[in-house]
Amino acid sequence: MNTTTAQGTRANSATRVAFQGERGAFSEEAALRLLGEGIALVPRPTFESLFAAVGEGAADFALAPVENTLAGSVQRSYDLLLEGALHIVAEVIIPVRHCLVGCRGSSLDSIRTVESHPVALAQCERFFAAHARLRRVTADDTAGSVAEIVRRADPTRAAIAGRRAAEFYGGVILREGVEDDRENYTRFVLLAPVPEVREGADKLSLVMTLPDGLGALCAALAPFARRRVDLLKIESRPVKAEPWSYHIFLDLRASLLEADTAEALAELRERAASVRVLGCYPSARANEAEGLARLKD
Amino acid sequence: MNTTTAQGTRANSATRVAFQGERGAFSEEAALRLLGEGIALVPRPTFESLFAAVGEGAADFALAPVENTLAGSVQRSYDLLLEGALHIVAEVIIPVRHCLVGCRGSSLDSIRTVESHPVALAQCERFFAAHARLRRVTADDTAGSVAEIVRRADPTRAAIAGRRAAEFYGGVILREGVEDDRENYTRFVLLAPVPEVREGADKLSLVMTLPDGLGALCAALAPFARRRVDLLKIESRPVKAEPWSYHIFLDLRASLLEADTAEALAELRERAASVRVLGCYPSARANEAEGLARLKD
Repeated sequence: MNTTTAQGTRANSATRVAFQGERGAFSEEAALRLLGEGIALVPRPTFESLFAAVGEGAADFALAPVENTLAGSVQRSYDLLLEGALHIVAEVIIPVRHCLVGCRGSSLDSIRTVESHPVALAQCERFFAAHARLRRVTADDTAGSVAEIVRRADPTRAAIAGRRAAEFYGGVILREGVEDDRENYTRFVLLAPVPEVREGADKLSLVMTLPDGLGALCAALAPFARRRVDLLKIESRPVKAEPWSYHIFLDLRASLLEADTAEALAELRERAASVRVLGCYPSARANEAEGLARLKD
Repeated sequence: MNTTTAQGTRANSATRVAFQGERGAFSEEAALRLLGEGIALVPRPTFESLFAAVGEGAADFALAPVENTLAGSVQRSYDLLLEGALHIVAEVIIPVRHCLVGCRGSSLDSIRTVESHPVALAQCERFFAAHARLRRVTADDTAGSVAEIVRRADPTRAAIAGRRAAEFYGGVILREGVEDDRENYTRFVLLAPVPEVREGADKLSLVMTLPDGLGALCAALAPFARRRVDLLKIESRPVKAEPWSYHIFLDLRASLLEADTAEALAELRERAASVRVLGCYPSARANEAEGLARLKD
């Protein structure tokens, strides 16, 4: 952690950043990594309340997880991006390392149950296979599980969560790196009420619908492909009022500061039924000193 | 329900079909709609055990949900399709209608809590807004919730589930159609240990990876677009060992019984890093007498 900002985003003690989860969550770590320790953290219990936080005046920005390299897209975030009017102004990627956390006085021998978010438990299959006597208990989130086991002070109960949660609540780390796969990263986007294209912006996110279901996808991608603009990710979500129709989300290696991108977008608008630019921002790779992000292009 | 088969799939009393969930689940309804009442139903508690059922000899087919028109793709099914070696041989679409189900002696006035799968609860927001005194309780599945409230016989507890679950466990339907959105359908695929392209097959499902991340997607789609083959759905799932790389799943309006499709596939194989055909089968639309499916193309 440091107090400088990772993305050039202005952050000071007045900057309030909403995240989903309890204090100590991976989302909190992502907010601090992106914006520095000086920010005011605004924990929100649900994704709905996270996305509503800026509009309600409770926060200046919202930081939402959009993708994990093992679990895939966070579908709820995509739907709420679509339903709301927030703009992506930055992104950040953090590694997810799971720790087995007990209360003071606990040990690997004393514990009998391990609680956490079901995705976190599922990412530690090998650990559970090697310790077959441990019973898994699902909980709402990782950091909240640590808060609970520390509060209960029962040496038979442990949680799986990040190091930050263990330190925040005063839990004891019994084992670090219990995840099966080290290639475990989560990508978050920073959402603001007004669009802003910062210097260094090299990634463009948009969402579109196509006139005839998905038949026109190839035509819609062509304006970018012809200009050698790389497509980094494609995601589809249902159009709720129209079964078997889809909103198509694209992440492209492109900047709105370049004329080529504006031309490709103009062509796309002629071919698509609707196009909405979600944001143009510096990709996490460009600022990732730790070399954690290995975006392919 | 009827005893004829909806998809021409041979079904008799020896045909064992695995589904995920408890007896009375929406998946069970889908199995019966597709294969008729004569089949032997094999309920499996988890998606993992569902996909393993055929290989273990516990079932002849597995029926897996892949998509809901409100909730979107069932990510776990896509991952397990990829990890396993099963083949899609048919599909079926069922409408999802939620009922409020109580035990005998209960009424809309007597209930205080309503339990169900979180997705089902989330699909009934308007009902809960109109009955603000009702507390929502999340459970593992819809049918299991009904089993539990009938067993407890507590008139303050109700569940949300389909009519079939209410009837199976002897619950009382207190209100039918409590979902917010009637355009609520779930699509399932029937999985078999060997591929089979039946007469009338008009839908092709495949999964591919591309050489340079997603940059080559437009080129990969072109062989189909040029032949006016409609793309019905695209879904991406992470390649677990390679962060920011994706498996791309395509559903196309195409038949392996036609030469055009074989040519397009051959071209695709030259452009993609890997291509695996998941199955070629009659689309649910073609056999949907009830007009429930409104597939766009």
